[in-house]
Amino acid sequence: MTDFSHYSRHELAANTIRTLSMDAVQKANSGHPGTPMGLADLGIVLWRDFLRHNPANPHWFNRDRFILSAGHASMLLYSLMHLTGYDLPLEEIRQFRQWGSHTPGHPENFKTEGVETTTGPLGQGIGNAVGLAIAERWLATHFNRPDFELIDHYTYCIASDGDLMEGVSHEVASIAGHLGLGKLIVFYDDNKITIDGSTDLAWSDDVEQRFRAYHWHTQRIDGHDVEAIHEAILAAQAEQERPSLIITRTHIGFGSPGKQDTAAAHGEPLGEEEILRTKENLGWPATEPFYVPEEVYDYMRPEAGPQQQAAWEALFARYREAYPELAATLTAAVNNELPPGWEDALPVFEPSEKGMATRAASGKVLDAILPVIPWLVGGSADLTPSNKTKQAGIQELRRDDFRGRYIHYGIREHGMGAIMNGMSLHRGIRPYGGTFLIFSDYMRPTVRIAALMFAPTIFVFTHDSIGLGEDGPTHQPIEQLPGLRAIPNLYVFRPADANETSYAWKVALERTKGPTALALSRQNVPTLDRSRYAPAAGALRGAYVISDPEAEPEAVIFATGSEVHIALEAQQSLAEKGVAARVVSIPCWELFDEQPEAYREEVLLPRVRVRVAIEAASPLGWERYVGREGAIIALDRFGHSAPYKEIYKHLGLTSENVVAAVLRQLETARG
Amino acid sequence: MTDFSHYSRHELAANTIRTLSMDAVQKANSGHPGTPMGLADLGIVLWRDFLRHNPANPHWFNRDRFILSAGHASMLLYSLMHLTGYDLPLEEIRQFRQWGSHTPGHPENFKTEGVETTTGPLGQGIGNAVGLAIAERWLATHFNRPDFELIDHYTYCIASDGDLMEGVSHEVASIAGHLGLGKLIVFYDDNKITIDGSTDLAWSDDVEQRFRAYHWHTQRIDGHDVEAIHEAILAAQAEQERPSLIITRTHIGFGSPGKQDTAAAHGEPLGEEEILRTKENLGWPATEPFYVPEEVYDYMRPEAGPQQQAAWEALFARYREAYPELAATLTAAVNNELPPGWEDALPVFEPSEKGMATRAASGKVLDAILPVIPWLVGGSADLTPSNKTKQAGIQELRRDDFRGRYIHYGIREHGMGAIMNGMSLHRGIRPYGGTFLIFSDYMRPTVRIAALMFAPTIFVFTHDSIGLGEDGPTHQPIEQLPGLRAIPNLYVFRPADANETSYAWKVALERTKGPTALALSRQNVPTLDRSRYAPAAGALRGAYVISDPEAEPEAVIFATGSEVHIALEAQQSLAEKGVAARVVSIPCWELFDEQPEAYREEVLLPRVRVRVAIEAASPLGWERYVGREGAIIALDRFGHSAPYKEIYKHLGLTSENVVAAVLRQLETARG
Repeated sequence: MTDFSHYSRHELAANTIRTLSMDAVQKANSGHPGTPMGLADLGIVLWRDFLRHNPANPHWFNRDRFILSAGHASMLLYSLMHLTGYDLPLEEIRQFRQWGSHTPGHPENFKTEGVETTTGPLGQGIGNAVGLAIAERWLATHFNRPDFELIDHYTYCIASDGDLMEGVSHEVASIAGHLGLGKLIVFYDDNKITIDGSTDLAWSDDVEQRFRAYHWHTQRIDGHDVEAIHEAILAAQAEQERPSLIITRTHIGFGSPGKQDTAAAHGEPLGEEEILRTKENLGWPATEPFYVPEEVYDYMRPEAGPQQQAAWEALFARYREAYPELAATLTAAVNNELPPGWEDALPVFEPSEKGMATRAASGKVLDAILPVIPWLVGGSADLTPSNKTKQAGIQELRRDDFRGRYIHYGIREHGMGAIMNGMSLHRGIRPYGGTFLIFSDYMRPTVRIAALMFAPTIFVFTHDSIGLGEDGPTHQPIEQLPGLRAIPNLYVFRPADANETSYAWKVALERTKGPTALALSRQNVPTLDRSRYAPAAGALRGAYVISDPEAEPEAVIFATGSEVHIALEAQQSLAEKGVAARVVSIPCWELFDEQPEAYREEVLLPRVRVRVAIEAASPLGWERYVGREGAIIALDRFGHSAPYKEIYKHLGLTSENVVAAVLRQLETARG
Repeated sequence: MTDFSHYSRHELAANTIRTLSMDAVQKANSGHPGTPMGLADLGIVLWRDFLRHNPANPHWFNRDRFILSAGHASMLLYSLMHLTGYDLPLEEIRQFRQWGSHTPGHPENFKTEGVETTTGPLGQGIGNAVGLAIAERWLATHFNRPDFELIDHYTYCIASDGDLMEGVSHEVASIAGHLGLGKLIVFYDDNKITIDGSTDLAWSDDVEQRFRAYHWHTQRIDGHDVEAIHEAILAAQAEQERPSLIITRTHIGFGSPGKQDTAAAHGEPLGEEEILRTKENLGWPATEPFYVPEEVYDYMRPEAGPQQQAAWEALFARYREAYPELAATLTAAVNNELPPGWEDALPVFEPSEKGMATRAASGKVLDAILPVIPWLVGGSADLTPSNKTKQAGIQELRRDDFRGRYIHYGIREHGMGAIMNGMSLHRGIRPYGGTFLIFSDYMRPTVRIAALMFAPTIFVFTHDSIGLGEDGPTHQPIEQLPGLRAIPNLYVFRPADANETSYAWKVALERTKGPTALALSRQNVPTLDRSRYAPAAGALRGAYVISDPEAEPEAVIFATGSEVHIALEAQQSLAEKGVAARVVSIPCWELFDEQPEAYREEVLLPRVRVRVAIEAASPLGWERYVGREGAIIALDRFGHSAPYKEIYKHLGLTSENVVAAVLRQLETARG
């Protein structure tokens, strides 16, 4: 057995992480060894001396949150989790990046218990961290009572050069500074190396000055100086008015004689030979990969963790006695359990030819449900009056008052998405946030990752088509609907009228395993008379026959949102011509896909060959319903700046064109 | 006639812009009056005293570039263009935001001659401006010679609060500071108002400190103090080592007694009554909307412009004599005319079972064509070795040496896209830039706007599927291909092998009216033996029959990229079972859509009902080729971290599944 007596216990643990990381990446023949090697010292000090957590129960609600925004350094996280006693045995480390393992290439919270969020796409983690810190303070404000500091955890985050180069880091750091998130502590891993080489190639920011401009507390330390790390974290904790940035100078590939401080240590295995040299350099036994000295487990195990959790559970038990209603509300919020009968609050809208925009209906839904679901917290990326996301009497969340239930995210869609995902992950708070549908493009990475990690974030996307009119093609979505529909596990809901909007919100709020995007109109649409048309509750199945002719249908017309009304108009005209057409409203494709086949066939009526779809968006995907021979009345081009009715007319989104398409197909079918 | 004698000529012009803006927005019943009113003073000083331009020839190559990043303030731009003599008569101002006018809601360079770029989505304009300034300096470095300062223009940009809140502004400002773009001058319109209200609601950045952290030269001025504006621009011009930010405090809705400094002035008409009050306040004749005093035209017309252009043309004529080759190269570059016979340089790859990744083939194409097209300038968002975008011997562009032809954009995809679009718009330089396909999501707004404004930017997206393997689902594109295909006027090219890759580059480079996205594999794919399979030149038509059976086809199999090889394998297995199947490689749907119908029908073979598509991406859209009854072997879920061959197998992207799908359909068809 190798003699480790010359090692401090810290060094022993750090070199364990370094060698585990090297070995795992080498065995997988892919991965990122250098960053975990550089961050081992920081990781150990943070996890051992500061992080309040209980590996036996990764879900303990008041645990500190740790976010590895530099997700490629996943072996740092897996090593720390393994060494501190999470359910991540050494065998999992050996199976790094393999099918069926719990150690994927980048951390995935839905795959590995104890991983707080899914990271890898840079900048997302720091955004989530800001959301977690907002959630913490919001919950503390709402639920803590004298002598009951129920919620009071830190949010720690390690961010890389890449995280801080990404634009989203600007957005979320600016918000964090604006809100004065004193319990957010971010480490910037300043290792001076990216994939392309030295950071000098592309970046010369004065990061400290930049974060001071956001009103952060900043420090600079040597990331391999254990005492300095310790002191810096203490100082960051002491600072309660501002988020903290600790600029931590580390050496990527620390300990590797040939690759330390080089890009070669970043994204590929060090190579067998260099691993041997590194182990020799670190005084490590070379023969046995994945070697963990037993005393490292002793050193790393957070003995206080279980006691801290037990103390907290006891506190919560007393709290439940002292404040039973608050305790019940918090429990429901954390479990995403809506209050019994909450849906009775959902408004039912009277039929009206003039109707209202579905964004306005959405606003009315929020009017009704915000009082019933007190942990619903809204916001907008500076389109509040347009998105109708802020209700009368709802106060905004401010630096000096976190009672508010509305966040002015500023013109920062990407940051809003990442922050909302962090709030969703925290639990206890349910976020929704608005922008224009066109700007879903600005926040698309956050919509995707919410879907990937089953986060129930609600995206309110108004101004959902050329129907927004004069703002013109830069603001008119075309490809956004199919682009969102292509994202697995995302519900994309485009309601046809006020009552479908109400049901869309019902679906979104009841969904706990994934995000929902609501696509809402700027322009008024009729509120359909449901005594004449099928009940709007059909929307709960994703698609439904909104209107059937008396005779057997000879044609089926599909539409979503504002175009359902054009389809119904066409149905009427066709009836006058003696053609019986069914109209299907299909507000949510994904939900429809989940229905039993019998229902789907019943709605789709495949035997009818005359099929038309109309939607003010790219035609991509509509062949799924109308087939190769069907007609799709859609937009294979960008929009136009003009009053919206003119655009609809000029671009051919008219009932006349639907009628013509039906007649043309009928003729072909008959001929 | 109103007596304007108390006005300075500047004030008269400024109030003309203010009243034109109010009137146009009021008449259109939508738009943004407040910002043009606030920026009128700045606009006039900049355009009148500094901007080198010739309204009679908006394309004069060495003109100063002016970018209104705050695109919603379009009436400022239209007013300035109208007053200085661009082909934008008053009637166009009256038709603001109407169908068929040249004055859309947000500036569109493809609709209005003299508008440099399309803005509106915030942050894009400042990104374009950085690209324009890079292009200017690159061209100056390459083409200027002693006594021939052929290229030496400024790039001016007006950015709003929103522009600077957006993450992309961080990315591009950081790059601009890093590269020391001394001739870039950005005005930050600090008006303290956004749509939601006071900027205090969401933002407390110290903008000046932030930009100093990026190494910009900064100034603060009163945006209504004409002399201060003038002095600040002089100082910014004098600063040659750093880009300049001039923080310009303005009052939104300047002059409006009821709405100045309020959010109400931002995004809606002031209202007839408030307009009357404002005109009264400004001493303006109330009765006549769109009133322009004649002397304002005299004041604003840039008399020097035509002479400056003429002098430049004379300089260029002398240059052409002194440096005929350089002049010819510059002319070709500006006109996007590839050198005669350039395509002879495109490599032809030998058949090989082992083959190579299409990203590697793309690298070899670049090896071959970079020497032939000297104005092709590459880059990557810090994935250079992965994207294969930097060739041996190609130098990087550095702050102190702009001879380089490669830009290390850092981990800033969005910024890269916006900068490349600016370079495309400048002309004289042709940008391509790489990242992983998954990160197309980070830069999607730039891909869209390139397509909208016909900018021929080339996006190199490698690691195009689950084929990237171990990095896992955060890095594996699923929805990106359909998401990009839904963008009008974008070519999305996913070549099947090295030779198709060569043709993909041919298409991308020859395209001058829109962007191209190349989706390239990480993993090796065979280089097909084209004596056995159809020539790769078929890719030039978007889709082609890559392999037909000897017998009449009973089935058609569609595939793109790496899955073409799976399709060919399936074809072989089917042949062994006596089933004749055609395989269609369809690397570019959009290009195929443009082919004559006869060709399309010939390839698609609609009479064959047995149809299968295979692609390692979301199935969305494939029904276009296989119909409702066809089979789509695709990914309606996220990927997985594991070696790629295992992922393909586990997720069912196999030739066995293609074969099974064909047999199943054949059975149904026969049964």
